[in-house]
Amino acid sequence: MEPLSIYKKNYHVDYGDADFYKRLKLSYLFNYFQNIAGLHSENTNVGIRKLQNDYGAAWVMTRMLMDINRMPECNEEISIETWPVEPKKKMIDRNFIVRDMDGSILASAISTWVILDMEKREMVRIDSVIPPQYPEFLKSKAIDRKFDKLKPSGQLQPAYKKLVGFSDIDINGHVNNAKYIDYILDCFTVEKHGEYRVKSIQINYVNEAVAGDIISLYKDTVDMDGSDKAVYITGINEVDGKVNFESHIRVQ
Amino acid sequence: MEPLSIYKKNYHVDYGDADFYKRLKLSYLFNYFQNIAGLHSENTNVGIRKLQNDYGAAWVMTRMLMDINRMPECNEEISIETWPVEPKKKMIDRNFIVRDMDGSILASAISTWVILDMEKREMVRIDSVIPPQYPEFLKSKAIDRKFDKLKPSGQLQPAYKKLVGFSDIDINGHVNNAKYIDYILDCFTVEKHGEYRVKSIQINYVNEAVAGDIISLYKDTVDMDGSDKAVYITGINEVDGKVNFESHIRVQ
Repeated sequence: MEPLSIYKKNYHVDYGDADFYKRLKLSYLFNYFQNIAGLHSENTNVGIRKLQNDYGAAWVMTRMLMDINRMPECNEEISIETWPVEPKKKMIDRNFIVRDMDGSILASAISTWVILDMEKREMVRIDSVIPPQYPEFLKSKAIDRKFDKLKPSGQLQPAYKKLVGFSDIDINGHVNNAKYIDYILDCFTVEKHGEYRVKSIQINYVNEAVAGDIISLYKDTVDMDGSDKAVYITGINEVDGKVNFESHIRVQ
Repeated sequence: MEPLSIYKKNYHVDYGDADFYKRLKLSYLFNYFQNIAGLHSENTNVGIRKLQNDYGAAWVMTRMLMDINRMPECNEEISIETWPVEPKKKMIDRNFIVRDMDGSILASAISTWVILDMEKREMVRIDSVIPPQYPEFLKSKAIDRKFDKLKPSGQLQPAYKKLVGFSDIDINGHVNNAKYIDYILDCFTVEKHGEYRVKSIQINYVNEAVAGDIISLYKDTVDMDGSDKAVYITGINEVDGKVNFESHIRVQ
């Protein structure tokens, strides 16, 4: 296939991809994004295998901002399109738009990716890997606003502790970006999930976690009952005290 | 599509379906089984939606026995076929065979399913749901031996505790069968997973668990270093003291 500026693919929401309320699990939407980003990278000759074989490196997502109009339902067919914009020195932003079969936008997202040298655990320059014959970079963005600075408005409350297991880590040996979405949503009861829907989420992946780590989840729901209905959630590694991720959710 | 005795479908092992060792996650193979069983049920007019709408009921897997010759690798295309055998009063056995693109058998499995009245949480008679025009039931079995009685050979050792979250439950509101496979494999370190491969697994789903429950995982690895290399693992609900599942794994 000719290298493409925009890559598009349909996904079917199987029963196993859905939560108790028969909506697509948010973490599975992150999985779909990961899948289509991988396919597009393959299409433009900077795929997972090539990065590993030629550079000992891997694509790693460092942050994601998503606006959600409606989560896809069980058995629904959706289409996702993705495109990167021109890279900076060590990072590249990738856009996603999710549509239903009528073409209505269900969700829009922007994400930032780096290429990590897996041995040194260091970022490498994007232009040392992206080939000169890369198709034209588009300038349009799926969401026309900047990533927020994330901070709690009130006091952080402990939610629960998560022991990272073998099932949480991916081929890169660290907790996969989509897993953190499950960790975040597990801070809330089934009833709360029935009451509220996520309208937007930003997550910053700050430090890697590996199997055996214990992540303490904290949330600040001080704005939950106001008009803003916002929650700040963070995960802190109990072993070294480092922040694993910070996130901010707006609900409705 | 004409109702079929055997249903067949290809699956592609995406990077996101793979573990650190770039093999398909065992829990994802359970997901594939769940997916194809659902499609076959749909094909034979006893699908998830019909059961829910007409009977307020759902298919629930109560046990699974699988022999594994080789786990599929990242990026591999596999084919799965499935067929049920003639039902008993309140249960029906379903077979699975997984093949690579050369037709070699990668894994064989037999599973037992019941139809659960979701309101009463009781099993209903299979013949009250399976239509008379169901295609011919085959007699052949994917594995020609019976389900084992599962029991530990030595003393059970506590492994870890798992707080069941929103992300663990499925559309039926209980911990999904595939999730328990992650719970089981998380009893072992990344290094152990590199050292050993699962050759066979049997799991019996004994009592449901729901979000908010705490499951204590226990393992008996007394046979681990002998010639048999077998492990018994169980999960016990801390809230009511009931056994959630029992499992037995042979490794190599």
